[in-house]
Amino acid sequence: MTAEVITGIAELTTNDPELGRIRDAAVVIEGGLVAWVGEAAAAPDADTRTDLGGRALLPGWVDAHTHLVFAGDRSAEFEHRMAGHAYAAGGIRTTVAATRDASDDELRAGLASRRAAARAQGTTWMEIKTGYGLDVEEEARLARLAAEVSPDVTFLGAHVVPPGVGADEYVALVTGDMLEAVRPWVRWIDVFCERGAFTPEQSRAVLEAGRAAGLGLRVHGNQLGEGEGVRLAVELGAASVDHCNHLSAADIDALGASGTVATLLPACDLSTREPFPPARALIDAGATLAIASNANPGTSNTTSMPFCVATAVLQMRLTVEEAVWAATAGGARALGRHDGPGALGGIAPGFRADLLAIDAPSISHFAYRPGMDLTYGVWEAGVRAL
Amino acid sequence: MTAEVITGIAELTTNDPELGRIRDAAVVIEGGLVAWVGEAAAAPDADTRTDLGGRALLPGWVDAHTHLVFAGDRSAEFEHRMAGHAYAAGGIRTTVAATRDASDDELRAGLASRRAAARAQGTTWMEIKTGYGLDVEEEARLARLAAEVSPDVTFLGAHVVPPGVGADEYVALVTGDMLEAVRPWVRWIDVFCERGAFTPEQSRAVLEAGRAAGLGLRVHGNQLGEGEGVRLAVELGAASVDHCNHLSAADIDALGASGTVATLLPACDLSTREPFPPARALIDAGATLAIASNANPGTSNTTSMPFCVATAVLQMRLTVEEAVWAATAGGARALGRHDGPGALGGIAPGFRADLLAIDAPSISHFAYRPGMDLTYGVWEAGVRAL
Repeated sequence: MTAEVITGIAELTTNDPELGRIRDAAVVIEGGLVAWVGEAAAAPDADTRTDLGGRALLPGWVDAHTHLVFAGDRSAEFEHRMAGHAYAAGGIRTTVAATRDASDDELRAGLASRRAAARAQGTTWMEIKTGYGLDVEEEARLARLAAEVSPDVTFLGAHVVPPGVGADEYVALVTGDMLEAVRPWVRWIDVFCERGAFTPEQSRAVLEAGRAAGLGLRVHGNQLGEGEGVRLAVELGAASVDHCNHLSAADIDALGASGTVATLLPACDLSTREPFPPARALIDAGATLAIASNANPGTSNTTSMPFCVATAVLQMRLTVEEAVWAATAGGARALGRHDGPGALGGIAPGFRADLLAIDAPSISHFAYRPGMDLTYGVWEAGVRAL
Repeated sequence: MTAEVITGIAELTTNDPELGRIRDAAVVIEGGLVAWVGEAAAAPDADTRTDLGGRALLPGWVDAHTHLVFAGDRSAEFEHRMAGHAYAAGGIRTTVAATRDASDDELRAGLASRRAAARAQGTTWMEIKTGYGLDVEEEARLARLAAEVSPDVTFLGAHVVPPGVGADEYVALVTGDMLEAVRPWVRWIDVFCERGAFTPEQSRAVLEAGRAAGLGLRVHGNQLGEGEGVRLAVELGAASVDHCNHLSAADIDALGASGTVATLLPACDLSTREPFPPARALIDAGATLAIASNANPGTSNTTSMPFCVATAVLQMRLTVEEAVWAATAGGARALGRHDGPGALGGIAPGFRADLLAIDAPSISHFAYRPGMDLTYGVWEAGVRAL
């Protein structure tokens, strides 16, 4: 195996509690993994050497919430919302119609283009949800296409009830034939537990069926108002509950005491004009936070993790360190990929060598220079991708 | 002269009240200017042809407020502010020290790098202020270097009172020897009329001296609290008053009844956590708005006009059309370059051919897809720059 040593790292964000943030660091990668991390002066030799010339290196973004496989455009709905109208989950149906009409290759082209745009901003791992098919054949097709791009595919048949189907009838389909049809390609199950989408009882049925089929659990909860989403996620031991805009004190305490990650979606909050989640209160309660893009054509048509991190700092009042941690190590935890060989979201021996070098001396520049393209280099599993 | 016709324009933003927004449009450029605009079906022949393939074309951004000539970094001050401390104008002195220490070529390299980063996001015109020299020789040097990059250089000797000099003594210098020294390179004079910087009386003295020297007037006003900045700017007929975070009802009425442009700086507002200006109230009062980056190392270390436009829509509640107009035609008005041959900020016959093509069918995507790089092509004075 060929080893590469990266030097000239002004600031290395390891996300390792013991290694911390290392100034004037070096990293050795070998066989797709991080093999060594430490101060540059102590770096071992390697076959090849890359000098970052005084730039910062951090783990690539782990984007744990995307709806990346879709067709069509919802800019008209977006403009309507910007003119003061509230978001309603029903807009999802517009994308369902366009997605059903698209060929496999059209969907592949969209996925590839969005994946490349995300990579250009440093994203090295993306979860991808189904949820714009909403019948057995279409959900299976979306799961299959998403699995060509990511090992973390989430079955979100329970995104919204499609037109012309009764809600209970649809839940029976989701938990029955549809679940069976997508099963070869998915690792997770998710449900949109919200007014206008699925009730807590329906959501529980979906999640329990997924668990019985061996899937990990995720929940869209508490986006448009207080509700049962967070409680349900914590009770069932979901890996993540996402959105969390409207939390009661009990919800915050429950998240603080649980292993369920609270995945925050700042770009979506801006686009829907929901209040930001109580991020500081969640941290104070001991909750684990992730930050993700929620890339989707309705409410967050962006894969820009730097934009999400900047918003989390400037407006949700996380520190830069907290925001970068949430968008890397937090995302890895939300996907259950934070330990063991090939773990994500850190730069320490044994982690997958998913790295982002930025044209800046410190991660503080993600918030200090919002809107600027800071990407200098991207490695995926040890291979230079950009 | 060679003429180029640009076709395949899904949506053309002309900023011309009669031409409006044209679907399926074409533009002819010749001799650095726009020669013809209309529907594609009626486009005349030309020597060369560029097909945008269904993308949107708009005027390049006119960034009417930047402090682009500086050296050094203020990320530590930024992090301090993010931790909850208020912005104070005194941080400017940190940049003054670093800038004085930098050679001409170091400052040129910084200017070129920032100008290129701005162009990559579609900025085709930038005003540049002095203000990090604060003595006669240094302010003249910064004006000379800025004039190598832009015809719109603004003398901002009255940025902050430098250490070791009395305020009145310094105002006498600014309005005397310093003004005379910068005069060959500057078109505008500006003053930071704010608590911690210059009083209304001192500000008036600076502006009147500039006017007597033949300069146009600009004012930094009402950023950190209500004050006299807007009133002074309107009274003296300034081209623009910039920031406008804290406005009384009388200030809003005064701006609505005046020719003074209110230049809003959304990225700075996020970084300083000042309340956003009352943009909708200003529009309702009939005021002319510009949106600018305020690029500077302390409070807005970005040249991203797309980020500013997205913020103006998502958070200041402008429509996309209003925000794009303010960032193009509004900027041109703030710089007195909105009419006559070679005017800026529009795409109509006689305008300078400063154009931005985006990889999207409509300008709505600036807010619909925040954080994404939409630049597809940039023309400056008819020459393809990107």
